[in-house]
Amino acid sequence: MILYDYFRSSASFRVRICLNLKNIPYKTETIDLTQQNSSGFSEYQHINFQGLVPSLKLEDGTLISQSLNIIEFLDKKHPDPALIPRQQSQLLKVKQISYAICCDIHPLNNLRVLNYITKTLKNSEEEMRTWYRHWIMEGFYAIEKWIEEFHSNQKFCVGDSPTMADLCLIPQVFNAKRFNVTLENYPIINNIYEHCLTIPAFIRAHPDNCKDN
Amino acid sequence: MILYDYFRSSASFRVRICLNLKNIPYKTETIDLTQQNSSGFSEYQHINFQGLVPSLKLEDGTLISQSLNIIEFLDKKHPDPALIPRQQSQLLKVKQISYAICCDIHPLNNLRVLNYITKTLKNSEEEMRTWYRHWIMEGFYAIEKWIEEFHSNQKFCVGDSPTMADLCLIPQVFNAKRFNVTLENYPIINNIYEHCLTIPAFIRAHPDNCKDN
Repeated sequence: MILYDYFRSSASFRVRICLNLKNIPYKTETIDLTQQNSSGFSEYQHINFQGLVPSLKLEDGTLISQSLNIIEFLDKKHPDPALIPRQQSQLLKVKQISYAICCDIHPLNNLRVLNYITKTLKNSEEEMRTWYRHWIMEGFYAIEKWIEEFHSNQKFCVGDSPTMADLCLIPQVFNAKRFNVTLENYPIINNIYEHCLTIPAFIRAHPDNCKDN
Repeated sequence: MILYDYFRSSASFRVRICLNLKNIPYKTETIDLTQQNSSGFSEYQHINFQGLVPSLKLEDGTLISQSLNIIEFLDKKHPDPALIPRQQSQLLKVKQISYAICCDIHPLNNLRVLNYITKTLKNSEEEMRTWYRHWIMEGFYAIEKWIEEFHSNQKFCVGDSPTMADLCLIPQVFNAKRFNVTLENYPIINNIYEHCLTIPAFIRAHPDNCKDN
């Protein structure tokens, strides 16, 4: 199995945690997103027409794109430990948080978008950083409230073991911290982040511990 | 069942198609997104902490947010017709397209983001429209290539009946057309759009046919 990966990509980070939690052996191939022109052609676009990471190449050559798609696939094929609950009410909570991050926060914060804001729209670095923080804070506000309502144990978003929601949340918090978003208004999110980063599968997936960093 | 809805919301449009295809009776409550301050408080935020549409309220009072979460829930509870394939290779294709739209195109094009660009960043209306078209074209490029590789019948994205991928694609094409994105470079997407809009469940869900339009 080959993971087309970039250490700083949140979406790749999600999949690395998944592979580690499930103890699935994999090799990585680094796709340096800083070297790509977002609208231009690249070698990697033969593998993934979007030119985004991650992609996963299976042993039979099958290529899978989109981090959530990869995680769902792996969770079915390697169900232990389960990262997507089978029980309906837990499942709804996990998906709600995962999608809020992957559809409403992260897409506004990724590299191609930040480049567009500073390079194409010619907004300042400070305006870009304010934009970044704005979408994180708006999203974290809702997620903090939801997790509170779910009566999380504050170790994980939902239930008492890691789920897809934590795979999405931890990389997003890592990003928030890079852009100096203080977590004092999100104490539950902060507790979950601190707890998850004591777990080896999360630590090994962390950008600081990637060989391409 | 109550759908918190806004006629022009792509995410609501996806869920309306789903409810119609499955013949599930529902009432709508209109949330006028143009009246909301994206970072401010609103009545609706008691129902959905993100202040986004859609949300679905079940008869037992359960609230479900995030359009993909709602569609997955409905597809399990009302499996006929199935919108999410059980067969693995079909499933991977459907999810890949759905996530590419919901995580990489639509989030950059929704109202709160366009407002931020013109009102907070003070970019011009023309710059905002160019931004809008840029992300649609980048996303459609990949989706057109994928559907071509899937050997779609050009009536639907995957297989010979509507799937979650079509529920995501048709609203996104509708948006593209509103912003004058020409589809001449995406003939397969265009064929699928034209075909789906001959199907009553899609027609009834269309923004032009919503009572709050």
